[in-house]
Amino acid sequence: MVTRLSHFFLRTLREDPADAEVTSHRLLVRAGYIRRQAPGIFAWLPLGLRVKARIENIIREEMAAIGAYEVHFPALVPADPYRESGRWEAYGDGIFRLKDRKDADYLLAPTHEELFTLLVKDLYSSYKDLPLSIYQIQDKYRDEARPRAGLLRGREFTMKDAYSFDYTDAGLDVSYQAQRDAYERIFQRLGLEYVIVQADNGLMGGARSEEFLHPTSVGEDTFVRSEGGYAANVEAFETIAPAPLPIDGLPAPVIFDSPDTPTIQTLVDHANAHLDAPAPGIAGPATADATQWTAAHTLKNVVLALTHLDGTRELVVVGIPGDRDVDDKRVEVAFAPAEVEAATDADFARNPQLVRGYIGPWSETGPILGEESASGIRYLLDPRVVDGTSWITGANIHEKHVHSLVAGRDFAGDGVVDVASVRAGDPAPDGSGPVSLARGMEIGHVFQLGRFFAETLGLKVLDENGKLVTVTMGSYGIGVTRILAILAELNNDDKGLIWPESVSPFDVHVVATGKDAAAYALADDIAARLEATGREVLYDDRPKVSPGVKFADAELVGVPHIVIAGRDAAAGDVEVWNRATGERQVMDVEAALARLTAR
Amino acid sequence: MVTRLSHFFLRTLREDPADAEVTSHRLLVRAGYIRRQAPGIFAWLPLGLRVKARIENIIREEMAAIGAYEVHFPALVPADPYRESGRWEAYGDGIFRLKDRKDADYLLAPTHEELFTLLVKDLYSSYKDLPLSIYQIQDKYRDEARPRAGLLRGREFTMKDAYSFDYTDAGLDVSYQAQRDAYERIFQRLGLEYVIVQADNGLMGGARSEEFLHPTSVGEDTFVRSEGGYAANVEAFETIAPAPLPIDGLPAPVIFDSPDTPTIQTLVDHANAHLDAPAPGIAGPATADATQWTAAHTLKNVVLALTHLDGTRELVVVGIPGDRDVDDKRVEVAFAPAEVEAATDADFARNPQLVRGYIGPWSETGPILGEESASGIRYLLDPRVVDGTSWITGANIHEKHVHSLVAGRDFAGDGVVDVASVRAGDPAPDGSGPVSLARGMEIGHVFQLGRFFAETLGLKVLDENGKLVTVTMGSYGIGVTRILAILAELNNDDKGLIWPESVSPFDVHVVATGKDAAAYALADDIAARLEATGREVLYDDRPKVSPGVKFADAELVGVPHIVIAGRDAAAGDVEVWNRATGERQVMDVEAALARLTAR
Repeated sequence: MVTRLSHFFLRTLREDPADAEVTSHRLLVRAGYIRRQAPGIFAWLPLGLRVKARIENIIREEMAAIGAYEVHFPALVPADPYRESGRWEAYGDGIFRLKDRKDADYLLAPTHEELFTLLVKDLYSSYKDLPLSIYQIQDKYRDEARPRAGLLRGREFTMKDAYSFDYTDAGLDVSYQAQRDAYERIFQRLGLEYVIVQADNGLMGGARSEEFLHPTSVGEDTFVRSEGGYAANVEAFETIAPAPLPIDGLPAPVIFDSPDTPTIQTLVDHANAHLDAPAPGIAGPATADATQWTAAHTLKNVVLALTHLDGTRELVVVGIPGDRDVDDKRVEVAFAPAEVEAATDADFARNPQLVRGYIGPWSETGPILGEESASGIRYLLDPRVVDGTSWITGANIHEKHVHSLVAGRDFAGDGVVDVASVRAGDPAPDGSGPVSLARGMEIGHVFQLGRFFAETLGLKVLDENGKLVTVTMGSYGIGVTRILAILAELNNDDKGLIWPESVSPFDVHVVATGKDAAAYALADDIAARLEATGREVLYDDRPKVSPGVKFADAELVGVPHIVIAGRDAAAGDVEVWNRATGERQVMDVEAALARLTAR
Repeated sequence: MVTRLSHFFLRTLREDPADAEVTSHRLLVRAGYIRRQAPGIFAWLPLGLRVKARIENIIREEMAAIGAYEVHFPALVPADPYRESGRWEAYGDGIFRLKDRKDADYLLAPTHEELFTLLVKDLYSSYKDLPLSIYQIQDKYRDEARPRAGLLRGREFTMKDAYSFDYTDAGLDVSYQAQRDAYERIFQRLGLEYVIVQADNGLMGGARSEEFLHPTSVGEDTFVRSEGGYAANVEAFETIAPAPLPIDGLPAPVIFDSPDTPTIQTLVDHANAHLDAPAPGIAGPATADATQWTAAHTLKNVVLALTHLDGTRELVVVGIPGDRDVDDKRVEVAFAPAEVEAATDADFARNPQLVRGYIGPWSETGPILGEESASGIRYLLDPRVVDGTSWITGANIHEKHVHSLVAGRDFAGDGVVDVASVRAGDPAPDGSGPVSLARGMEIGHVFQLGRFFAETLGLKVLDENGKLVTVTMGSYGIGVTRILAILAELNNDDKGLIWPESVSPFDVHVVATGKDAAAYALADDIAARLEATGREVLYDDRPKVSPGVKFADAELVGVPHIVIAGRDAAAGDVEVWNRATGERQVMDVEAALARLTAR
């Protein structure tokens, strides 16, 4: 049925919405696709719903092609399975929680791993039932601290989440690859550029974890890639530890006065003014040939406060080369599920053995940091702080530092932690060369969950030998509404949206102009004939609206093909307008129909 | 793509689920359509999701045919618009409420009148924009006190809710009729018997309100209908008030001893034993010719306690003929939005002027009941208690009653309330004859909201004269998941489900049996050829499953057409099995395909 604008529920707006920070949000609201209901929560108007449905259909087709079946879980789910997995607590403030009239706990599910696991446990019992891939396309909820950027970071959003079930690791690899391939086809059909990056595999400790990032300067995620093909998000980047250096013959540590040097830069300046130049090889390969002291020669000791799931607070000191910072996201991942923040004044007040601005692991009377030290505070070292590297660092005495402090001789950590910032030029861990940094937006995630949920919730099947084995799972997510927003973000100009054909709300936008009945008759005819070939047509038949307004609306709405029946209608001619290129061409109706129905 | 049972996500169950009270629930779980997640909350498995999608598509097609456009609101919505309409309070415990991390109030919306109103207010400003009909198909939430009967009364359920917007009453009538007609087509296409009954028009006070009830003995709703075509649910039934009777010449009230007569029956027995027989005309037309005292001669005074929205508690006494009871649903509607319960012992203790078991409106020293009386308690009368009717009722003295108490002379009410139970034989209010009672299940509701929400939320448009007028609205709901359950409830036998073609999860269920490769090859071929004609095929290709199990599964799942390729496959013959009639017929493949693809 032809959709007529004289009657359709659409009002375009002249003004940008006041709260729109990004192009997609601005245009989707102005062109009548979505409408804000609450922070991060939107209503879908008919145009928006049509685009969303087209994206969902592409996903459904590709899921069907790999033999994944669609199910649908409720948004409102009981807390118990999430308690068993530990996520009820782990989510913290990030989810919506509620109680029913009987005071039972529920949540609005942000993802459904637990319930998928329990469903399969309910129904399946044998290896013969596997492999299985099932998915849903569902409205999900997260109580984001700062919902923003329209649909890009909302509190209600639509996701397709799929889960695979296998009883062998090799089976999981096959299921994983099938989903990964399907994702590539989905993004190709959507015309959406993507980079597959290694991702952190999180708490569940599965084997493979990859994100599909759309590279864009406005992306929230930073990722690194090498010319040689390595790609990972910063959380997953692994620093290559250099080889240890010989310790024999290195000079002994020397404490020196360093008044008024609470920062790395003041310390470096002081060292260059008052110390001998560094000896070759000092502080490891990166600075081996330095003739001046640099930040890379210093060991920065960052005090972090962890809040564990049980509520206990623990101070941890991280030792990293002074030319790097601790990266917030890498820290978050490294210490999850604990929450991390910088130590507070109160933390320092409770730990007077830490001399702020001059913290170091060593003193003449014994170690200061480390579980076995005087303080008992856990001390973790950057992978670059290998045995035999020599550092300038705090002497743990106000306005004093120490130099020639050698790792593996004068101090040691309780373990290694890879949380320092990643920089362009750092070597890719796979040896494929130096990395560069770029920004991207996550559009999909494929992830080998492994046996975490199956173990926790008791999903086992009998194998070929009649032995109970724990099932291994994969989790595969695509953000439907986020993809819609990114497509809007990518496909527009100063006049409005320009949809790819694959997701446009309509295939053709027919416009009748002028007061001539012939124009309307011809437009009616074209619209009906296009619909007869299966094209979906938006027909601007509004009788008292000027051509200028109609054209402006067509440009704003962004259907890729526009047909105008106007002045030349009596002669049977129309204008065919390519929204993307701006090209407008007069041709007769038959030629226009032939062009618009060519596949 | 042919769906193969060897791989499809389906496990039928041999056992009925322990909590299944109704057939639909039992069969939908056993046949693998749904799975319980929490009380009244279900997951949809692939079969169930397919049936649901087919029902939704029928609704979408009929909505498109009347020019209604689809939108989609979030389930999680802010409280403020519901506060403005008063529903935030009025819903009481019946909705799920929650707070976000900023302590703002939200609810899981049971319906979206407020947000639809605000959306149109946002975008529309002129009579030229109207009429408009928009709808959504959406998962809704109600925190039912007793979720039960599977999908029939759940806490999460899918509804299509439509709203119309007009600026004249005549326009609303047209929009209303279009939706009503669409509903009739939808139910006809679903093969679902329905009765359209007048319904209560609730708090909003709109003009027309009709429910589509599916008549079924397991229905929760009672409705009445006359041979002459009247139909209404009991809440909406209007009692015809008889004409007043002359008061002149009626005997004066007489108090009499009535020891141990706290109930109507003991009172009637006492009256027949101790009083003169009733005079003709006593207590109005219904009992005009009685020669014995009956319950209909008595006036029963029922004490109700209302809790108003502001939390205040008010006692109200309702006077009804003693042969009827107060109907809970009619009371609920009559006093809404107040909540009603029977007066408690504490209420009576606080109101000692009410002599329990012997309550009446009159005493020798003046009125006992009524706002102007000694008690000040509001007194409402049944429509049958017209002036000139004469009653036996309590004398408000322990073990004493009064007879010959005449309405309009000895007592009067503060108003009329029509809350007595409706009985078979009561006259239809439209004069179409006596009514009978039946039970039904609500499957749809069309309702003229009128200007309640538009007035409350400020939805006005400029009319032809440039004057601001308040928009008038209609509300039109269909319970998608409830319809699915009713269809399952109606279409089954002792073997399983039997879907109507219009909503069956698949069009044809192809079964290959035996160990003969020819059977599987033929079944493959049939499945592929059926899919090529647009039929959706479920193909039971499981290699090591017995024919008996396959047939039992086919019967349980309930696809209406089954094709079996087995013994005769080598000869090119198959068996075509009509699930509903049980008829099985051997024919060659071409004949089978011709039959199965005939429209």
